[in-house]
Amino acid sequence: MGEFDLIARYFTPTVTQAALGGGDDCALLKPAAGMQLAISTDMLVEGRHFFVDVAPDALGHKALAVNLSDLAACGAQPLAFTLALALPQTHAIDAWLAPFSRGLLALAQAHNCELIGGDTTQGPLTICITVFGQTPQGQALLRSGAQVGDDIYVSGQLGDARLALEALRGQIALPLTLLSQARERLERPTPRLALGQALRRVATSAIDVSDGLLGDLGHILQASGVGATINTAIASKLISKYPGLTGDEIYFSSKKRLEYVLAGGDDYELAFTAPPTARASVQAAAEQTHTPVTRIGHITAEPGLCLLDASGQQLTTSFPSFDHFAP
Amino acid sequence: MGEFDLIARYFTPTVTQAALGGGDDCALLKPAAGMQLAISTDMLVEGRHFFVDVAPDALGHKALAVNLSDLAACGAQPLAFTLALALPQTHAIDAWLAPFSRGLLALAQAHNCELIGGDTTQGPLTICITVFGQTPQGQALLRSGAQVGDDIYVSGQLGDARLALEALRGQIALPLTLLSQARERLERPTPRLALGQALRRVATSAIDVSDGLLGDLGHILQASGVGATINTAIASKLISKYPGLTGDEIYFSSKKRLEYVLAGGDDYELAFTAPPTARASVQAAAEQTHTPVTRIGHITAEPGLCLLDASGQQLTTSFPSFDHFAP
Repeated sequence: MGEFDLIARYFTPTVTQAALGGGDDCALLKPAAGMQLAISTDMLVEGRHFFVDVAPDALGHKALAVNLSDLAACGAQPLAFTLALALPQTHAIDAWLAPFSRGLLALAQAHNCELIGGDTTQGPLTICITVFGQTPQGQALLRSGAQVGDDIYVSGQLGDARLALEALRGQIALPLTLLSQARERLERPTPRLALGQALRRVATSAIDVSDGLLGDLGHILQASGVGATINTAIASKLISKYPGLTGDEIYFSSKKRLEYVLAGGDDYELAFTAPPTARASVQAAAEQTHTPVTRIGHITAEPGLCLLDASGQQLTTSFPSFDHFAP
Repeated sequence: MGEFDLIARYFTPTVTQAALGGGDDCALLKPAAGMQLAISTDMLVEGRHFFVDVAPDALGHKALAVNLSDLAACGAQPLAFTLALALPQTHAIDAWLAPFSRGLLALAQAHNCELIGGDTTQGPLTICITVFGQTPQGQALLRSGAQVGDDIYVSGQLGDARLALEALRGQIALPLTLLSQARERLERPTPRLALGQALRRVATSAIDVSDGLLGDLGHILQASGVGATINTAIASKLISKYPGLTGDEIYFSSKKRLEYVLAGGDDYELAFTAPPTARASVQAAAEQTHTPVTRIGHITAEPGLCLLDASGQQLTTSFPSFDHFAP
């Protein structure tokens, strides 16, 4: 089957919001009146971002989810995406593409996000998605808006994806039910799109947590020229509660747990700031979108990240953030 | 040097046309009033689209050029692009990225096309660019507009890139000056942006020639529901004239020459159609943009591609188009 047949069979672009979908040299797109286009791109490489044996439908889901998460962090509503795909010749292409496209397009459909173009070639398995959303002019959530005194929040749970990764790598042993729960978070992250849009004009800054909370929060601090204090006793509870696991549970130490929460990566939750006067609005946004939100600290004038334990003492542990080029 | 430092050093996004460049979760972009956004994405993989030892600055140029060529084929004016890059750990990253970014950004600047975001990761050398342009609403050049009786044109030259490729692969021997000329066309294609824009409301359909003239013209025929007759005696002259090469020259046969012209690929010229009444307008667009344009045939009601030789006889040779998944 040739390249054009492949594209036609599994990735027929849809054309309702886009003026013109795939099948021409360019796709044509226009944001609605008064709206700006929000654009983000992410590349996933086999062996780096996913295991060779990951279920193709989960991979399809995740490849789009990590991009939608960037739209969520800007408060943007998804519109469309392009998909560039390098596939190894050795792959049983049909057997792989069918579930991959199913996982991808199911998430796309759930968020009304249309496939409008792409590219397919031969090469080491690589997925590059560029996603398009829209926000009302001037209302995008940026990293640069955090103010001294703002509360710091995070959505959902943190650390589960890293927990699954360590277990799959054989670094820790987990009971099967626990592994299965954590693995779902690693392989099928939930982009917090509804929350992001509900936080427009409520949050002062936002970012999605992809490389680890501390590292990503650091981007907000840097862009806003501020510092932060984080209550790690509260944050450490953001890793999933599994039946039978309390305190210093047998499967992984509390130090590991904190590391997974603060620097685990692959969470695709939103970290954001809002003034204390907006606490009711943040709560309303969380409830309206059925997304748990936890207040984990506040913005300070003094630069840097200060981590406090349950007794208010400063932690000295360092938590390196995930970096694709770190040694 | 970490991922964020790498991005900052070589790919500092510029922010003049875009509302907000890189450095946030999304870039923000808005087409001008009355304009539609044209979007295209292309992925280049080492060993498939370029040789391991290609000069990094040429590769930077080409990676953007092939995307700009898609904008040209829609008659769009470039605005911005995103860059996703997978780099092997073994690469001397600095020594490679410096010239790569130089070649890329020089072409971007020449066309006022801003880098607004991207992604960098570790992996087999892969470049994925998504490019954004704008066209006045309803004026994009599509593949579907060719009408029976239209003339068929192609810009510039065809076949040189393939000629260079065959020589670099050791399939044919070329004198150095000839190789160097052809290689420039392979490695530094010229996106026909000015011509594309000048052809708005003149051409009835257009496509860029990336996979070979016959294959790409076939997309116009299919989308427009028409056929075509091509004068191969005229087309075969579109391969560069090199000093001392005439007729059945010593370096490659006239059959090979025709194959390179009709099915060589990697040309990044525009193939387009326009009614005979628009011949003066086509000529004016060509002159105004300093882009040679050659009339090579016409659109027919009968489906399929009919190739005629100098004496008007139909050729029976078949010229398979390049396909990344062909056996």
